[in-house]
Amino acid sequence: MNNLIETTIQSIKPLDQNSMSLAKARQDTLTKPRGSLGRLEALSIQLAGIQGKSRPQIQKKAVIVMVADHGVVAEGTSAYPQAVTAQMVLNFIRGGAGINVISRQIGAKVIVVDVGIAGKTSSFLGIIHRKIASGTQNMCHGPAMTLEQAQQSLEAGIEIVQSEINKGLDIAGTGDMGIGNTTASSAICAVMTGKTVVEVTGRGTGLDDQQFRHKIEIIEKALRVNSPDPARPLEVLAKVGGLEIGGLAGVMLGAAARRVPVMIDGFISGAGALIAAAICPQARDYMIASHVSVEPGHRYLLEHLGLKPLLDLDLRLGEGTGAALGISLADSACRILAEMATFGEAGVSDKT
Amino acid sequence: MNNLIETTIQSIKPLDQNSMSLAKARQDTLTKPRGSLGRLEALSIQLAGIQGKSRPQIQKKAVIVMVADHGVVAEGTSAYPQAVTAQMVLNFIRGGAGINVISRQIGAKVIVVDVGIAGKTSSFLGIIHRKIASGTQNMCHGPAMTLEQAQQSLEAGIEIVQSEINKGLDIAGTGDMGIGNTTASSAICAVMTGKTVVEVTGRGTGLDDQQFRHKIEIIEKALRVNSPDPARPLEVLAKVGGLEIGGLAGVMLGAAARRVPVMIDGFISGAGALIAAAICPQARDYMIASHVSVEPGHRYLLEHLGLKPLLDLDLRLGEGTGAALGISLADSACRILAEMATFGEAGVSDKT
Repeated sequence: MNNLIETTIQSIKPLDQNSMSLAKARQDTLTKPRGSLGRLEALSIQLAGIQGKSRPQIQKKAVIVMVADHGVVAEGTSAYPQAVTAQMVLNFIRGGAGINVISRQIGAKVIVVDVGIAGKTSSFLGIIHRKIASGTQNMCHGPAMTLEQAQQSLEAGIEIVQSEINKGLDIAGTGDMGIGNTTASSAICAVMTGKTVVEVTGRGTGLDDQQFRHKIEIIEKALRVNSPDPARPLEVLAKVGGLEIGGLAGVMLGAAARRVPVMIDGFISGAGALIAAAICPQARDYMIASHVSVEPGHRYLLEHLGLKPLLDLDLRLGEGTGAALGISLADSACRILAEMATFGEAGVSDKT
Repeated sequence: MNNLIETTIQSIKPLDQNSMSLAKARQDTLTKPRGSLGRLEALSIQLAGIQGKSRPQIQKKAVIVMVADHGVVAEGTSAYPQAVTAQMVLNFIRGGAGINVISRQIGAKVIVVDVGIAGKTSSFLGIIHRKIASGTQNMCHGPAMTLEQAQQSLEAGIEIVQSEINKGLDIAGTGDMGIGNTTASSAICAVMTGKTVVEVTGRGTGLDDQQFRHKIEIIEKALRVNSPDPARPLEVLAKVGGLEIGGLAGVMLGAAARRVPVMIDGFISGAGALIAAAICPQARDYMIASHVSVEPGHRYLLEHLGLKPLLDLDLRLGEGTGAALGISLADSACRILAEMATFGEAGVSDKT
């Protein structure tokens, strides 16, 4: 791997145990029965360990939406035409998409990145232009991209999230847009978790039974043609992945290297997490799983990563919508830890 | 039953099917695969039916925290002394409790109501004084309260929520405080769901094994002494309930009568929901279950009511903390429906 990726991986350290102990001790003095805020308490302690602060804060929030196209859509694996990828970017820019709505509610910035949209997008204003290719190649006939392109997608993610961190970002949410990207994510999921393609493949944006069977065949073919080796995650990304999936893996590594928590969205973000965690297992401690989606592979992938989702709301939109909801819970967790009165301060009698 | 309760029940009508159809139709034109926002879409449609508006709104929010004491604590069923009930009310007033923190985050008002705190509270500022008794009687020796007191607790809830609705409330969250109230809630839960006391009883604020066995024996004794009949919900409330549980049942009925959604908190609020739904089954359509708590009876109670919780975060604090988190999701659901662009508006190609 190249310099930026290597340096980033080497900067990812264990969670700060001292901050976690202080956060845990404080939780136990707050005016509530110990442990009674359940996963919000555990989350506040994880965030303390990530940020290296006994009172972590979630003030400056962003959802980074990586966008790219997929050559494999030529095989008819998606219910929507490829043009929708670019059309949805215009919708993001105008603030009309699901992720815009929830981000406005929670006070998060939406950062849209073109890492590989098919066709000309240079006139699109208000997005970050990091196009590595006009979509991937069709993975049924060979690798989706070169190893160099896969590296470039990681680098884009690292640089973009670290540029936001330089401006004070407290938490990064991940999001995706890319027609065809559940196909690539299922392929990655099968390789990295060892599950069969049938087990990890779903109906994406809404395939009928016949289209669904076809999607499974196409993924199986892509795996036969490319024989990706799970011990070489960057190669897996290159062979059967996507540019936005690489970009998201980069965001995760780049954030972890700077002790910033990453709220992972759904199945596509999860595929990125599989790549990031395989490249650097320590990065997992910086990840928070916002939700478990309807895509069947997502559950396996979260188990494989050892991540327990916060929400289970049958979401399958992507874009970072689940991550944005999760960021709001992370914010609750930090506020509880920082703002609740202690038994002593409030003059409340503790357990007898 | 008396006039206010009767009138309220008679005002509770079915959900508005026309608004629900319009909301559903709009969801299907928004720039996302149909159904891809899962339970948020279903929630927006339920809210449309409740409010009778094709685009429901969650702007003005309140969590109503009903507070009362329980005579049964004389039996040693709680890990905390009874004085904590009043002490926590002072904590609510000062803004230092869990519910204050999450309510500030989501922009909700916290309304604290004394329906039955033991001891003098007339000097407490900033709460609503509706004390019906200085706590209930010990239900091990006879009914916790008189039928008249049970009615008064319902009336208090109806009047308080409707007074807020007159000022424009869009959603009511329920919350509770009362040392000993998981004991009363388990008793109600056993009677109304037909489960055994062992199945529906938990460790409340944190009992050890011996205290836990004792709590079960006490609840079994209270049920033997009082023989509450599940066909007479007001009598169940009087015999083995609590004044705050009655107050919460009143909030649920009063809100439903005025087409305002109620976000139900945890186990104690759930016990109130069992009473409200038994008095008026139609009221269930106006209820949203925010979360499922660690208390084992809560799961049975939600199944009995046919309510599926939005969150599962191992919470067991009460106070309305789960309801406040749920209100934020209801807000997300309404914003999605109102603010997302349609395929037509955004110029995005629909499914092929």
